[in-house]
Order: sequence, then structure tokens, then C-alpha cells
Amino acid sequence: MDFIPEKSKFTPPEGLGTKVAVNEVLRFIEECMVASGASKPNAACLARVLVAADTRGHYSHGLQRLDLYVCEVKVNKSCDGEVQPILVKETDCTGLVDGRNGLGPVVSEYSMKLAITKAKNSGIGWVVARGSNHYGIAGYYSMKAVEEGLLGMSFTNACSGVAATRGKKGVVGTNPISVAAPGKGDDSFVLDMATSVVASGKVEVAEMKKESIPIGWGVDKNGEYTSSPWEVLHNEGWLSPLGGSELLSGHKGFGLGMMVEVFCGILSGGHYGQNIRDWRKTDREADVSHCFVAIDPQVFAPGFKDRMSGLMDQCRNLEPMDEGKPVLAAGDPERQHMSLVESQGGITYHINQIKQSWQLAQYLGVTPMTSV
Amino acid sequence: MDFIPEKSKFTPPEGLGTKVAVNEVLRFIEECMVASGASKPNAACLARVLVAADTRGHYSHGLQRLDLYVCEVKVNKSCDGEVQPILVKETDCTGLVDGRNGLGPVVSEYSMKLAITKAKNSGIGWVVARGSNHYGIAGYYSMKAVEEGLLGMSFTNACSGVAATRGKKGVVGTNPISVAAPGKGDDSFVLDMATSVVASGKVEVAEMKKESIPIGWGVDKNGEYTSSPWEVLHNEGWLSPLGGSELLSGHKGFGLGMMVEVFCGILSGGHYGQNIRDWRKTDREADVSHCFVAIDPQVFAPGFKDRMSGLMDQCRNLEPMDEGKPVLAAGDPERQHMSLVESQGGITYHINQIKQSWQLAQYLGVTPMTSV
Repeated sequence: MDFIPEKSKFTPPEGLGTKVAVNEVLRFIEECMVASGASKPNAACLARVLVAADTRGHYSHGLQRLDLYVCEVKVNKSCDGEVQPILVKETDCTGLVDGRNGLGPVVSEYSMKLAITKAKNSGIGWVVARGSNHYGIAGYYSMKAVEEGLLGMSFTNACSGVAATRGKKGVVGTNPISVAAPGKGDDSFVLDMATSVVASGKVEVAEMKKESIPIGWGVDKNGEYTSSPWEVLHNEGWLSPLGGSELLSGHKGFGLGMMVEVFCGILSGGHYGQNIRDWRKTDREADVSHCFVAIDPQVFAPGFKDRMSGLMDQCRNLEPMDEGKPVLAAGDPERQHMSLVESQGGITYHINQIKQSWQLAQYLGVTPMTSV
Repeated sequence: MDFIPEKSKFTPPEGLGTKVAVNEVLRFIEECMVASGASKPNAACLARVLVAADTRGHYSHGLQRLDLYVCEVKVNKSCDGEVQPILVKETDCTGLVDGRNGLGPVVSEYSMKLAITKAKNSGIGWVVARGSNHYGIAGYYSMKAVEEGLLGMSFTNACSGVAATRGKKGVVGTNPISVAAPGKGDDSFVLDMATSVVASGKVEVAEMKKESIPIGWGVDKNGEYTSSPWEVLHNEGWLSPLGGSELLSGHKGFGLGMMVEVFCGILSGGHYGQNIRDWRKTDREADVSHCFVAIDPQVFAPGFKDRMSGLMDQCRNLEPMDEGKPVLAAGDPERQHMSLVESQGGITYHINQIKQSWQLAQYLGVTPMTSV
């Protein structure tokens, strides 16, 4: 999937480094977005979210997605890089936001802040946004609540891409769920998951590496399981809902995707289900919806953080099937990756990612990333 | 699993009918619970929840579970059948309830009513209860909100029974999620699912029928998949989390079970994870926790019900893989079963269930159910 074919006319030099300091990636993304027409604060906001994804090891939602945003804002002008969202309607504990077709991270940071403020004042903040665009990793926003000692949630709809149980096609997208909660000290629970078996990014990575995918990840245009990434991505195939077949309760994954759509498009009045445009087309407004929730645990029983870490420690202390693979709690793999980035002094990208970023820099007239 | 072995000394007569009118099942459950020591209103409340399960086709959570409740209230006195829950703490949009070790449905009906009242006044009601017991089907409570035109949610923790990804054992139970929302007319979305591949009741049914279970439902004591219900249920086996293996993202199902525990035991201050006693032992207080949420869609965008049905109709109108198996929306299978019960003038039980209920009637000195 190449959003900006024109950049391919630039030939990257040999010997580009693959490890880049976090601040340098932030600088690069921000400058690319400003060069594309986004305001500086909006560009910085998008950069924070994409870099958080890479730092946490979710490379499919980081720098790799920059071309998509550049295409939407600069090439197709299907998304407004300068606009700010507005609050349409509210109560003490709820809010409805109109993203005015702005950048997803801009709409989302605004909405999550609102949810956090309401939770601090009322115990709960439940904010729904429409008129938005791709918002990056769901966990970025739920973790904003954790920084304030709150429980946070984040959901987004997406274009139809997950097969419906029993159906040849689908209705909802990979519609992710993120729930994050503070534990003791720096500990936290961070669930951040697509409601499909895997997100489309995982299939894209397999294709890039010329690998087959496990049976169970996706189906071809006839609804049959396939090991071919190409069949899933480019030949009218579909991702499978979490659970897989009906015998193994794939209808639950499908139902969870529907639940996320209820929290997003159905509550907000934005597009929903099949009405959302294909994300690979950026020719008209996406009108994506999100949902953000913040809850102050202190309005319930005292001692939340201790119990939260207690539950995660019960998991971590379980005897593993394989000695080399300890049992993890949600958020542990990402913490490990963040430690790695910190100890290495930067994020290590695939060389193809580095080359593509260099090409994008030429295309936009931005200083390419410098490696460490 | 026989909670009350003493009843087996009564020999059921031949020729018992298997179809019983809904009101007769309600009468029977209520009288059994009163005979066991529950107050009449509390017994009636429990009867409503169990009969709703059977009417909706979730037989594993209906009359079949009556022995468990009788055992808890009468035999072991580990649950108080007469007590009412109390509200410990509240804000305009939140509540913390102490179930005082009462019947799960009594605690839950009280808590969901509170959530509904708060949602009507404030937009959201988020109520957490501790000190409770088994509450039956999660969907019963979320649907209470739908009756009032609201979106409803219901979650409960349960004793540890689902294997942790990578672990030989587990931490959380089948911790179900229910989300229900009103559509147009009588239409509604009702997701009601355990976060394991299947609930333990499905494995019990397979055992009763002397059938094997599909690979993927559960593991034996070594953490290996097994097709033997006995290994899962009686030989230190475990249910598998939704998704199954790590390759197919079983850690997501495991994470969802953890999320439910966060909403229940971690928010409420009740028991959590491995601290919850085995549900087959009723020798001490369960201290189960639940979470109930009600949301008034009118505080967000107008037209919620139309969009809700619109999304479900997108599913229902998909071309099916198999002509005989149309694509369904969450709640459709249960609606079909309710129509069947209505058209047949009663609930049809397995003959073994009828015999066991007859034995329970003798044991408790209650008039047995009359078939239609």
C-alpha cells in the first residue's frame, strides 16, 4: 500500500542508519506534517501519538502510518490539519465532540482531556467524538487517564474489514478496545487490542517479509481461511474476528467489534459499519468516531492501585508452560520494549522504513531523520 | 457436579412431562428458595433471573443452577437469602454497593436499578457491587436498561477457571461481558458472553451427553489441549481464553477477563482473581463482585435507536456462507428461542433436568413442577 507513489522517484543513499533518537523521530514527524499543511501544535500532537506507538513496539501504528496522514492532509485534503475540535453537547459526566474532520490524535487528545476533567469532578467522564480520522494506538489515550491516577478507556471504529461470523463479508472494522488502570508505583494495566485475531498491520508485516500467515488470521474472498497475506489484503479477503470460527466462538470477537461500534458511531451519530469509507481511500471525509472514558477509582473502594498490582502479580507469578516465556500482564510487553528503546538510546526501525522516510523527506522538502 | 446428594434417594416416577409453562417454573423456583430460607421477594427475584436464562436458551444458567443456590442458602448457609444490599458510597453518577452476602440476583437487580436512576438523572450510572454471589446471566441486567431506553452493561467476576496465556494455571474466571442497547421497536442489541472460548456449562453439557469437546475449548492439568470434558472439569484442567493459543491471540481473551476483574473486584474491594473461592465449594462467603452501567444515549447524538437497528440490519443482510445459516446480530439467537417458548406455551427441558427438579421438590417438600 503506497499512499504517496511520487516519493519513489527519490533514490535513498546507501548506508542509512536504522536507530533514531526519540526526539529526532518527533521532530521529523512534526516537520513532515507542518510541511503537509498541519498547524504546528496539531503536527506535534500527531507526532507524540505515532512515536508512542513505536516506543511501545507497535510499529504498525507509528512512523509507518505517516504517509497515510500526509496523504490525507496534503495530497487529498480529505482531513483538515489545522482545525480544532469543538464540544457540541455536555453534562457533568458526558460530552459529545465534533472533530470537524481534524486529525484523529488532535480530536482524541482534546476528548480524553475532557473525560479526565469530568472524571475528576464527577467520578466519571464519558466522551464520544465524531467527525474524526485515524487516531493511532488506542492505548495512548487510555494511558493519559492513568497518568492522572484514573482508569481510562479508549475505543474507535474503523472501516469494515473483519468478516462477520457466518458471512462472506463483514460490517465492522478491527475496532480496538483499550482499558488502562494504575497500579502501585510505575505499574499499570494496559490492555490495547483489536477485536480481530490480529490487526491488519500484522498481515502487512508478513507480506513485507514474504511470509505466510497462520491459518485463523484471515479469510479469502470466498470466506475460506487462507495463509496468503495477499488474499486477505488485496483480493477482497477479510480479517477474522477474535475467536476465529463459530465453533471456537468467533461470534464473540465479532460481537465485541459491534460493541465498540455502539460506543463510537452509534452513540456519536458519525458514520458506522459499512458506511465508513475504505481507509486505503482518502478521497472523502472519513467521519470516524471514538469513545473515551475516565473513571476515578476513589469514588469506589479505597486501595485500587494495590489490588490492581496484586491481580497482575498473580499472573506474573504463575508457573509458565515454557520456562523461557513467563506469564505477562497486559502492558508488560510494551514496558519491556520501552526499556529497550531507552537502553539503546533510540528506536530501531526496519531499513525499508528508514528508506521510505528518507524518500518522504525529499518529497516534502524536510530534513531527513539522522540516526544515532 | 451434585450440590445436594441427599435428594438422590427420591426416585422420580416414569412419564414426567418435559415442557413446563413459564409461570410454573417461576412458581417452582420461588417456592424452592423460600423453603430453603430465602425471603419471598428475594426468591421471586432469583426465579426471574433463572427463568429468563431458560427462556433465552441459556439453560446452563437457569433451572439447572437452582441446586447451587439451594445449597448455598439452605445446606451450607454460605449465602444469606433474606438480606438486602446497602449503598455504601455514591456520587451523582456512581455507586458502591455492599451485597452483604445476599443472593446475586437481589444484589444485582438493586444495583442495576440504581445505575438506571443515575443515568436518567445524570446521563451515566456506574455502580459496582461487592459481597455478592452468583448473579445468573449477565444479560438479564443489561437488558433492564434497554427496557428504559438506555444502553446497559453488566460484568461479574468468578472463581479462577480460565488458563492464563503461557501459564499452566489461571487467575481469572469466565468473567462475562454483557452490553445491551435499544434498537427500533422491539429490536435490541444484546451481547452476553463469557471471556473464555465457552462457559463451563457447555463443557458440562458435553460431559452429560458423553461427547468429546472440540480442541480449543479447554486444557488438561499440563496445559495441553484436550477433547475430554472430564480432564477440564474434574482433573485440574482449565477453560481456554477467547482466542485460544497465543498465535491466535488468546492473550486478548485473557486480557478481557482481566478487564472484567478490574471493573469488578478491583474497583469494588471484594475478592479478586485467585482469591475467589472455587464455585463448587460453598463452605465460605464468595464475596463475588459485579459492575453495572447504564447510559442515556440522548445525552449524545439523537437517533440512537435507528442507527442501532441500522447496524444490526447491515449484519443480517450480509450474504451468508451457508444459505441455511443467516448472519445474526447479538441477541437474535435468544429472540428466536423466546419465540419458540412462546409458541410452544412453555420451556422444554431435558428429561434429566425434570427428574432432578422433581427430586429437589421432594427434598424441600415443595410441589413438583407440572408439565403442560
